[in-house]
Amino acid sequence: MDPFQFSDILVPTLLLDEERCRKNIRRMADKAQLLGITLRPHFKTPQSAAIGEWFREYGVEKITVSSLTMAAYFADQGWNDITVAFPINIRELASIQDLAARIQLGIVVESLESIQYLEAHLAQPVSAWIKINIGNNRTGIQPMDEVQLEALLLALHKTSQLRPAGFLGHAGQSYAARGQEAIAQVHRESLYKMYQLVQRYQGRFPNLKVSVGDTPTCSMMDSFPGAHELRPGNFLFYDLMQWQIGACQIDDIALVMACPVVAKNKTNCEITLYGGAIHFSKDQLFSPDGKAFYGLAARRIEDQWKLVEPFAYVKSLSQEHGILKTDTSYWEEIKIGDLAFIVPIHACLAANLMKSYRTLGGAHLSMMR
Amino acid sequence: MDPFQFSDILVPTLLLDEERCRKNIRRMADKAQLLGITLRPHFKTPQSAAIGEWFREYGVEKITVSSLTMAAYFADQGWNDITVAFPINIRELASIQDLAARIQLGIVVESLESIQYLEAHLAQPVSAWIKINIGNNRTGIQPMDEVQLEALLLALHKTSQLRPAGFLGHAGQSYAARGQEAIAQVHRESLYKMYQLVQRYQGRFPNLKVSVGDTPTCSMMDSFPGAHELRPGNFLFYDLMQWQIGACQIDDIALVMACPVVAKNKTNCEITLYGGAIHFSKDQLFSPDGKAFYGLAARRIEDQWKLVEPFAYVKSLSQEHGILKTDTSYWEEIKIGDLAFIVPIHACLAANLMKSYRTLGGAHLSMMR
Repeated sequence: MDPFQFSDILVPTLLLDEERCRKNIRRMADKAQLLGITLRPHFKTPQSAAIGEWFREYGVEKITVSSLTMAAYFADQGWNDITVAFPINIRELASIQDLAARIQLGIVVESLESIQYLEAHLAQPVSAWIKINIGNNRTGIQPMDEVQLEALLLALHKTSQLRPAGFLGHAGQSYAARGQEAIAQVHRESLYKMYQLVQRYQGRFPNLKVSVGDTPTCSMMDSFPGAHELRPGNFLFYDLMQWQIGACQIDDIALVMACPVVAKNKTNCEITLYGGAIHFSKDQLFSPDGKAFYGLAARRIEDQWKLVEPFAYVKSLSQEHGILKTDTSYWEEIKIGDLAFIVPIHACLAANLMKSYRTLGGAHLSMMR
Repeated sequence: MDPFQFSDILVPTLLLDEERCRKNIRRMADKAQLLGITLRPHFKTPQSAAIGEWFREYGVEKITVSSLTMAAYFADQGWNDITVAFPINIRELASIQDLAARIQLGIVVESLESIQYLEAHLAQPVSAWIKINIGNNRTGIQPMDEVQLEALLLALHKTSQLRPAGFLGHAGQSYAARGQEAIAQVHRESLYKMYQLVQRYQGRFPNLKVSVGDTPTCSMMDSFPGAHELRPGNFLFYDLMQWQIGACQIDDIALVMACPVVAKNKTNCEITLYGGAIHFSKDQLFSPDGKAFYGLAARRIEDQWKLVEPFAYVKSLSQEHGILKTDTSYWEEIKIGDLAFIVPIHACLAANLMKSYRTLGGAHLSMMR
């Protein structure tokens, strides 16, 4: 039997190549160290205490998370400098208080209402970043909105419980860019917005820091002028989206989903996988001819995942089914009862659903729940 | 404070209107009873022991699930007649054995390989349905593929451990249909395929049953000629997809997601919700003018959820963020720290992610994990 058929894998399982993952972590840690910038990786991607320990081995001491629940999970694991990079949810005041008492907590604000509420209710000081819209247009204050920025900066500097940390942005528009030049342009424009802000306010509000970092720019760019810290998340795994953007090679991808083959349809050259929307989530990419797909099949060859060619793609996902469209040769090769290995579109969402990793060596790494 | 602000809800929470849910269950149970058809509801939607008990109160004794894991969960809750409506995963032989020893287990087959493998390895008999493609084109044997059907029927009738149950189909193409007439056409065509099969084989293989049932046809049609059992799932909650299809009214929808409001952008009339792809999953619908959306905001008025008008729609979802696009009036009404109530596109995927329900009365109903 093919050693990569893993006889102990019975149901859809996220397979993690630890060696490749550590290589991805080390590469990013080395880059940040070389540049003298703090790497504050976004742990919303791995959501795992065990993988967090790998980061410590490469010198990482500060992390980013996307919720207070996640901050509490990692605080319990001994992480004591955590930024929750999400507009602060004031309904969770008790969690904020609890975390502020235990760790160096950073939060993100973008409204006077939130600042006033926290100032009135917090018993412990926290660091507060102002969220800046550096082009993603999801959240944050526009850099040219001087009225709002002035109001927030003044309010923050008057409070006793919120310590102004600086400007935090996420150039998520990089996810719509493709290739080195397009990413470089996102990078220049987004960092220039931060540079202008710092220039504008540093006389009156010195010591404001700049926090940026999305996986495409952090992977593809070699300098981050003006930035004090980088917060990429996805880079430790990578996925097909990062590959299509140009942020990684297929060989860099550290996660695949092992999916049992449950049926085959010869007429359509389709293979039915046990592996659906409750395993992958439903992010999609488009092929050059405009066809949506939800994953690509890969084979393990000489310690690397290689895409099956011509591409065998997941053409649809329902709750538990994935339909893999292929050519006759891969269709003939794979049997009912085999595992197919699918490279996911979006590693973060797949990991969040699966709640555990199995390393190629057979270890099971749990995640927060 | 608005009583529907639920001061105990701090993070994204699935709110279940128990009364409405019971009404949906009762309506379907009454219809099946009137027609003399077995209702075998698909528990992949609720995935909850507590909600299973509600079904028992309306006379339901047999259920459908989508995985062996889910079958084991419900077998532990005392359900003893369970069909796993998914092409059987032969890698899980041990689970199949275990369940076959405990309950009346039904499985779905569509290949000689699976039949032969199970006949060689099973120690306990199970009922086996042949999956028929009645128009969904996802899995199953084409009704006109007489060669394959003949082979499967002969193989099944020769085995000692697989008891031929009949033909099982899922007219999932109803999800692409809109309105009464389109659903009626899907219904006629799919049932006619089953009728022809039964006609063709009943002389040689009598007693083969017909199992069908998707939420749109089960909700909108009043007769199911030739069908012995119905397997709808989503109908107990309904959602925007069912509403757009025409399978329910907004008033029938029993689930909404309560999402804390964390930021507001006046320029764009947008509201940032704590509620993203890890809460809703990423199924989308399209407005008449072709715009994708991921949910609609609703208000609680006189014991019913009413959509905010003009529609306030979730225009994008990232891992934890949802961006709600609205008009100035709703934008002004809702404050940072409030809850917004979002009707989901696809209740099954949202429930699967959330892993628990909170009833309007404040009870927490857990789900399988």
